[in-house]
Amino acid sequence: MTTVSIVGGSGYAGGELLRLLLDHPHFEVVQVTSERQATRFVHTVHPNLRGRTKLKFVPSASLESVDLLCLALPHGHASKRIDEFADKAGRILDLSADFRLDDLERYERTYGEPHAAPEWNTKFVYGLPETNRSQLSGASYVSGVGCNATASNLALLPLARAGLLDPERPVLVDLKVGSSEGGNKPSLASHHPERSAVVRSYAPVKHRHQAEVEEQLGLDDVWLSVTSIDMVRGALATAHCWAPEEVETKDLWKAYRGAFKGEPFVRVVKDRVGVYRYPEPKLLWGSNYADVGFEAEGRRIVSICAIDNLMKGAAGTALQCMNLMLGFEETLGLGFPGLHPI
Amino acid sequence: MTTVSIVGGSGYAGGELLRLLLDHPHFEVVQVTSERQATRFVHTVHPNLRGRTKLKFVPSASLESVDLLCLALPHGHASKRIDEFADKAGRILDLSADFRLDDLERYERTYGEPHAAPEWNTKFVYGLPETNRSQLSGASYVSGVGCNATASNLALLPLARAGLLDPERPVLVDLKVGSSEGGNKPSLASHHPERSAVVRSYAPVKHRHQAEVEEQLGLDDVWLSVTSIDMVRGALATAHCWAPEEVETKDLWKAYRGAFKGEPFVRVVKDRVGVYRYPEPKLLWGSNYADVGFEAEGRRIVSICAIDNLMKGAAGTALQCMNLMLGFEETLGLGFPGLHPI
Amino acid sequence: MTTVSIVGGSGYAGGELLRLLLDHPHFEVVQVTSERQATRFVHTVHPNLRGRTKLKFVPSASLESVDLLCLALPHGHASKRIDEFADKAGRILDLSADFRLDDLERYERTYGEPHAAPEWNTKFVYGLPETNRSQLSGASYVSGVGCNATASNLALLPLARAGLLDPERPVLVDLKVGSSEGGNKPSLASHHPERSAVVRSYAPVKHRHQAEVEEQLGLDDVWLSVTSIDMVRGALATAHCWAPEEVETKDLWKAYRGAFKGEPFVRVVKDRVGVYRYPEPKLLWGSNYADVGFEAEGRRIVSICAIDNLMKGAAGTALQCMNLMLGFEETLGLGFPGLHPI
Amino acid sequence: MTTVSIVGGSGYAGGELLRLLLDHPHFEVVQVTSERQATRFVHTVHPNLRGRTKLKFVPSASLESVDLLCLALPHGHASKRIDEFADKAGRILDLSADFRLDDLERYERTYGEPHAAPEWNTKFVYGLPETNRSQLSGASYVSGVGCNATASNLALLPLARAGLLDPERPVLVDLKVGSSEGGNKPSLASHHPERSAVVRSYAPVKHRHQAEVEEQLGLDDVWLSVTSIDMVRGALATAHCWAPEEVETKDLWKAYRGAFKGEPFVRVVKDRVGVYRYPEPKLLWGSNYADVGFEAEGRRIVSICAIDNLMKGAAGTALQCMNLMLGFEETLGLGFPGLHPI
Repeated sequence: MTTVSIVGGSGYAGGELLRLLLDHPHFEVVQVTSERQATRFVHTVHPNLRGRTKLKFVPSASLESVDLLCLALPHGHASKRIDEFADKAGRILDLSADFRLDDLERYERTYGEPHAAPEWNTKFVYGLPETNRSQLSGASYVSGVGCNATASNLALLPLARAGLLDPERPVLVDLKVGSSEGGNKPSLASHHPERSAVVRSYAPVKHRHQAEVEEQLGLDDVWLSVTSIDMVRGALATAHCWAPEEVETKDLWKAYRGAFKGEPFVRVVKDRVGVYRYPEPKLLWGSNYADVGFEAEGRRIVSICAIDNLMKGAAGTALQCMNLMLGFEETLGLGFPGLHPI
Repeated sequence: MTTVSIVGGSGYAGGELLRLLLDHPHFEVVQVTSERQATRFVHTVHPNLRGRTKLKFVPSASLESVDLLCLALPHGHASKRIDEFADKAGRILDLSADFRLDDLERYERTYGEPHAAPEWNTKFVYGLPETNRSQLSGASYVSGVGCNATASNLALLPLARAGLLDPERPVLVDLKVGSSEGGNKPSLASHHPERSAVVRSYAPVKHRHQAEVEEQLGLDDVWLSVTSIDMVRGALATAHCWAPEEVETKDLWKAYRGAFKGEPFVRVVKDRVGVYRYPEPKLLWGSNYADVGFEAEGRRIVSICAIDNLMKGAAGTALQCMNLMLGFEETLGLGFPGLHPI
Repeated sequence: MTTVSIVGGSGYAGGELLRLLLDHPHFEVVQVTSERQATRFVHTVHPNLRGRTKLKFVPSASLESVDLLCLALPHGHASKRIDEFADKAGRILDLSADFRLDDLERYERTYGEPHAAPEWNTKFVYGLPETNRSQLSGASYVSGVGCNATASNLALLPLARAGLLDPERPVLVDLKVGSSEGGNKPSLASHHPERSAVVRSYAPVKHRHQAEVEEQLGLDDVWLSVTSIDMVRGALATAHCWAPEEVETKDLWKAYRGAFKGEPFVRVVKDRVGVYRYPEPKLLWGSNYADVGFEAEGRRIVSICAIDNLMKGAAGTALQCMNLMLGFEETLGLGFPGLHPI
Repeated sequence: MTTVSIVGGSGYAGGELLRLLLDHPHFEVVQVTSERQATRFVHTVHPNLRGRTKLKFVPSASLESVDLLCLALPHGHASKRIDEFADKAGRILDLSADFRLDDLERYERTYGEPHAAPEWNTKFVYGLPETNRSQLSGASYVSGVGCNATASNLALLPLARAGLLDPERPVLVDLKVGSSEGGNKPSLASHHPERSAVVRSYAPVKHRHQAEVEEQLGLDDVWLSVTSIDMVRGALATAHCWAPEEVETKDLWKAYRGAFKGEPFVRVVKDRVGVYRYPEPKLLWGSNYADVGFEAEGRRIVSICAIDNLMKGAAGTALQCMNLMLGFEETLGLGFPGLHPI
């Protein structure tokens, strides 16, 4: 068994990763840290784990050495304490945004301050298997992905790879997202009577995950816009694109199938019958799938990707990376297909 | 114009009352107080009032004399400061629970401390027009009603009046309620990812509004149980009752029609066709109606009442009482019928 | 009193118009037709009107002459039977898409068949007061608006008028809409277990309302894309635009205030504090407001409009037009401000 | 591998059972029948199974012999065609209500017609492991359970077993349920704009599952009442009970722990801290747990059970029984813990 601990395990992404690890055949969860929840059973915070583990939260000061350390801390903490964590484990998977960007200028522009550990930054691989699988295999340091970045990247990947994005026209990704993206800190904005039924323009411009899309796909005229809707889990990216010239449906099929051939967690969804003809995030709650579909008229292409933001957008992809880091079967522990109806 | 101010107007019930008063032909809202929101436009807290009023919140220390004062303060504040408020206005409508119970022992048992102003308590009329209309007409001091108490009282009134409640059997009122009942203070329990989709046993036993039902209907074997569901406004009371002997549907119709004859805001809803055969709270959002229906088999009777907890359960009934206090037409300012579909 | 009847009054838009007309001081509703529901009380289909009217549906064959006829029929019916209806009333308000487009080629391209009554089409004024008020005043024949077209048109109007749309870049309107837009015919796609919680790419390309935006604003590189979410009423248009050059916030404020100055039902919403900093459709349920806001970075502008699709997007604007047609105060019968919390 | 086919597999319970069986280590799904969907891929109806199986629906006429047949047909079909099905398999698991009641008079009273196959009825074991485990082990014919019956039975089991139900007082079970209980046939009542946000008194009296509770627990003064709320999966039973005399919390703990000791899928949930202090159905979506909790004051006891109606209330318990029938580990294929947040 590979020993693993989660630092900052009282949040939603940490909790989801814990759920997955507890049922994984090759991992043994040793500790879960939380300063605020220390001494409490983890199931008081993650009630779905009642009866599944007797683990209690511990303060990070009592962290023991393990094979792999998962960091699920607020932005900025991982990079500031990275030496401390590297002392405890030879392998690190960081779920935060601290080590996601290679370009340190872009990092500073996006996050408003210089990177706290630039020398460490180069050691981390961006944890999206669909673009970086070979570097992730056997890697020691891996950065998790941004949820909205992942939905955007997977929507755009087939078009970018097949040269179907006109450099003269913008790429506009309009994302619809759930409340779990905001984390577990209550506020008036997240208070149920206020948050319920919203169609809230959360980040019409300047969403931070845009930087991950620019960098992964090498695009510079790509724009993310995020609207929060009444849903807890799930994100749908609707990417509005233009091809250099009119494109036929069969060429798009070829591009999408080509981009995702052999990918265990990407399905191309574009049907003529049934209720679910395009990707639908609710079908993916708890699942690691990213469903990707498209539609086109003339040069205009709408590419659509649905994910569970806590799974393919965070903990699920993280575990997929951990499997790659350690040479396990990539899909291990990620078999839940999602529910219907839901 | 009758001048009116709202003390503690940043909460949900106060905001709803403000909405109603701003469109009322005979009331002029002079001030709305809030310590925390003082100097802000009321529409920053009650965003539906954007463009409808230029009022700003003021601290209660700057309260001026008016014809009628509406108190919408947290529990215990109205009774402790009642002399101060009575100096400002000859008429008071208090939305809190402070003056709802005549029986001071019941008050102490329910709220865990002796009443702060027992001499004032006797001056207040319980503000439910369906039971106390004559005392409310021209009254100077009126207490608002509990939302769940009102749904329960109106469900049970026809049976209690017609002698259709077997004293040997319990009356069990199972209420399904929305999140606005909890007020506007955020907490982890009201955080959208936690509060969404719940069927939360909020008060399986010992709900405080039970005291108002015992007192208004003179029952001593009546029990309220409250479950919170994923809805912002609305309450449905399902009252499980037993008649002394088997009862026919036509006798129930007679009891219900008799109890609510001439009531401008109670409709008896029991249909054989259509989608909405029983009372449905969503149809009442923003409306002052209480819809009441029933079903029976043998001696068992299920009586059902739907309300908007902020309207018939709070601000709407309060305005109905204010109309009665001042001799206005009882329905003035309460004409909104509710929406469909919704 | 001006007499009015509604043809095809069992649908959602017809029902909403009926609700408004029943409370209007100058209109008297004479008949409401429905072939399928004939002889039933209107409140069996529109349950919010229980106790508000004793009207029953009648078949359209028994339609009597009135001052004004409102048509709320499925697409294609109004134009095919327009002579029949014009015999019954000197004024007609048609809620369907039959008479919305001046350009008959665009009509044929959009709706897939030639217009059934081109000679009548020229008599109809497009019923958006914010663009056509003067023609609507005293008009005899008025066409209602498309809900998604209206949200898009009002989002884009300030930019189009102020010359802030770069003709070299596309305008992309990404709409998030509720289930009432689909009407009241059940299907598996609208079945609650299937329709609940969706983020359904309903019309990624080729939404018919695009034609109304092209025509009203004179744009030819504008694209609508519609996603259905878990909401009954409401539409939010997120319009992604590019200005010819970098634009300052104060110039945008000037453009928006200029476009909507004096408009009784458009509010510019762009706040730095509070929970609702941009337009929010849930606050508009039942209200005739269109709330419009914006955000910008460099040349990129995101313009946002929220409406209740059944009100400002259909019945509300229709009544606003009827007030103009008959010389009544434009806001009569449209005073409901919307609710909060909701 | 044990071969298994599902007859009537296009419905929600059949689809859920298919999801479970596809991931079960010892079952091989051979056929899934549906007359209406025959020749279509099962994932067009159960979209969560996209990429998980290449099975297509077949008509039941082409049913082949297998080790075990699961019947998921509408009420009445299984009993009328039982000989036909028994020819195809030595073991049958029937999800319908046809073989749930031992007492044929109760059956006729409940379902309005005599039983179609009384001689077969005696061969079927009621498939609730928590009451009938020993008979289920190795059984050939097992009947599935009613969802609302199961939530009620598990809420009441500890009290019934411990003699804590006063025979002089009624037991009233008030259930809150989701829309998936109604199956996958669309109607106006299930149309999203109508069904959304409801608190619909679906069966205030005379719910058919009451018969299963009477029979399993031997009670004759027990009453079910069902209210539909805005949720797809999940049922919460709130059982209002009276003890013969005042009861202490520790005695209730003893009764609940005693009743469910060693039960792999029942958890007693009653906490003093955290957001989820009582059973909560949303935490169980996709899981086979039944969570049971309680509260008491004096002689009054409120017992609460949450389940996923398609899992512990149907397909999950069915698979639990199939594991028992075949001597597999009882929990096999039922390991999913449920999600949080959700």
